[in-house]
Amino acid sequence: METREALAMVFEQPKAPFVAHQIEFPPLNKGEVLVKTIYTTLCTSDLHTYYGRRISPVPSILGHEIIGQIVHLPPGEVTDYYGHPLRMGDRITWAVYAHHAHCRMTQKGLPQKSEGLYKYGHEVLGTDNTLNGGFATHCHLQQGSTIFKLPPTLSPQEAAPLNCTHATVAGAVRLAGDLQDKTVLVSGAGMLGLSACAMAKEQGAHQVWVSDITETRVRYAQCFGADGWILANQGNDNLKKQTIGKEGIDVIIETSGAPSAVEKGVDLLTIGGTAVLIGSVFSQRNISINAEQIVRKLLTIKGLHNYIPQDLASAINFLQRTHSIYPFKALVGKEFPLQQLKAAFEEGNQGRYYRIGVYPTKPEPFGA
Amino acid sequence: METREALAMVFEQPKAPFVAHQIEFPPLNKGEVLVKTIYTTLCTSDLHTYYGRRISPVPSILGHEIIGQIVHLPPGEVTDYYGHPLRMGDRITWAVYAHHAHCRMTQKGLPQKSEGLYKYGHEVLGTDNTLNGGFATHCHLQQGSTIFKLPPTLSPQEAAPLNCTHATVAGAVRLAGDLQDKTVLVSGAGMLGLSACAMAKEQGAHQVWVSDITETRVRYAQCFGADGWILANQGNDNLKKQTIGKEGIDVIIETSGAPSAVEKGVDLLTIGGTAVLIGSVFSQRNISINAEQIVRKLLTIKGLHNYIPQDLASAINFLQRTHSIYPFKALVGKEFPLQQLKAAFEEGNQGRYYRIGVYPTKPEPFGA
Repeated sequence: METREALAMVFEQPKAPFVAHQIEFPPLNKGEVLVKTIYTTLCTSDLHTYYGRRISPVPSILGHEIIGQIVHLPPGEVTDYYGHPLRMGDRITWAVYAHHAHCRMTQKGLPQKSEGLYKYGHEVLGTDNTLNGGFATHCHLQQGSTIFKLPPTLSPQEAAPLNCTHATVAGAVRLAGDLQDKTVLVSGAGMLGLSACAMAKEQGAHQVWVSDITETRVRYAQCFGADGWILANQGNDNLKKQTIGKEGIDVIIETSGAPSAVEKGVDLLTIGGTAVLIGSVFSQRNISINAEQIVRKLLTIKGLHNYIPQDLASAINFLQRTHSIYPFKALVGKEFPLQQLKAAFEEGNQGRYYRIGVYPTKPEPFGA
Repeated sequence: METREALAMVFEQPKAPFVAHQIEFPPLNKGEVLVKTIYTTLCTSDLHTYYGRRISPVPSILGHEIIGQIVHLPPGEVTDYYGHPLRMGDRITWAVYAHHAHCRMTQKGLPQKSEGLYKYGHEVLGTDNTLNGGFATHCHLQQGSTIFKLPPTLSPQEAAPLNCTHATVAGAVRLAGDLQDKTVLVSGAGMLGLSACAMAKEQGAHQVWVSDITETRVRYAQCFGADGWILANQGNDNLKKQTIGKEGIDVIIETSGAPSAVEKGVDLLTIGGTAVLIGSVFSQRNISINAEQIVRKLLTIKGLHNYIPQDLASAINFLQRTHSIYPFKALVGKEFPLQQLKAAFEEGNQGRYYRIGVYPTKPEPFGA
């Protein structure tokens, strides 16, 4: 008999064991989709929530870097981002949020700030709202989700971080403008930073510099397109000598969120330079910067939170083009079955790997 | 016999009398123009220099908000911004700087940061470089100056501030992006602020708010398109209640340069909002702003110093369209002959008027 129930590992309180819930498949309304989860990667924000470093409603199903396979469709057509109909068995990713197409924020070009936004892996479990996170065998996609078919060449380990890490970085690169022949500094060499190095390089940057407080991390970024690295705890005078030379930094993509990194980044920009901030998503002290410098150097500072669907499209295209050049697959350092979710979080919290993978069913070995 | 000498009132040291110099007309090289000064307005930065509040090389001829009439042209053609040939007798304005068309900064779209930039009213007097400011009977335009013929409908009092105030504001409006149906806050109700109110209104802003510490100034801004005003020394909670309501501030154009005004402005922006800074052109304390807010609210902060030639073109078109709607002419509160330049500065420093006018020859009454 066909299974009609999903298994979800529910987060009830920080550091406590996840609680296994059997959840009946929901009936599907117009525009909704039920997917079987293929693979989920632990995002740093999942770790922050589980370890109580940030407040999130409970009970909930964490995990938002998810990919899945369509197992149920409602009557009527459901289409992907490009307007193509979705079919049973399609392997998909989707934007981390479902949004309203006609609300004021969406019309302003900011669907990620749509009123009543629904974010996968962030919603409290309700009666009509159950399978909404990545740490479950199934996920129930709401109307207003932007869905993309996955290129068959991408492994689950590569594809899972698309809808968070890579899409956000694609948004940052969009805001940074034309990178052709520019000198780019990527601040922070975590998952976002590695993606930013590779994407900046692919956009034609003349030089990609990367900075972090950890030497192993900046060294590793050279596998992702970084031309040179800097230790972030040096004074800016040293950094300037090393990096700027005659040309200066045209664009900084700041992924660490550290106020000191934002301050240093703005200070390193040359005339006409742009800083795009994507890392500052936690409570922190104010930054101290000089408005006269912003004016006299004609600087631009832009913040981005989440991304727009077009950015996820760019990220998928980017990864499809470059996944054989940059070792994105290797960023998943260890994998756990869904039932061992607590062990996965414990491993993740050690910070030894960029990503930890979680799967309901062990994925087939992929690629060569 | 034809005059071959100009009279310049030379600035030698702060607060001292200007020294009258007779300066022989220079020979004109390719691309150069000699104009007879029609009218010059005192910019606030002229006052800062003369009163020693900012350091500037001496001896020099101050004054950069100038208009003039062409009295000598070199062999060969000199063309205006639009490529049309210039003729003897043309009434013109020109960008406050002469730039190199082929240098790196110009090619990056920042001619105002061109290497070896030549700024009218800011250069030290040299042997080959004499008539370069507005407080003289003549001005010697260098190659690389961007020249515009003035519409005959504009009075000297309206036209003189074009190449500084209005062009800078046009640049700020360009950086602010589409203002159609936006809620705009103009911070600071000096000359820049009044111009910004009018320009924002003309660009289709839904509501234009203006803030300043002086009530008479914000009230007066209502003659220049402001829909409502705010006293800047109130707390932001009050401002938010008054201004933001449901919609919030989409764009702030900050003209005061006060660090507290920049901080308040950024804090008042709604999701997706943009702050353009043009006032912060003096040495000042750092601003303290929150990077998490910049990220979560997807804010943009841009600085502008001077402007690009296209902005002066926009400013001229704007003033031509609107000078019968907004009382720009009335902003020149008092006029002095060139020989009484010290008295003009003394009056300007009282701050009673937005602008003081200076003329070598009393202009004919203009218009109705």
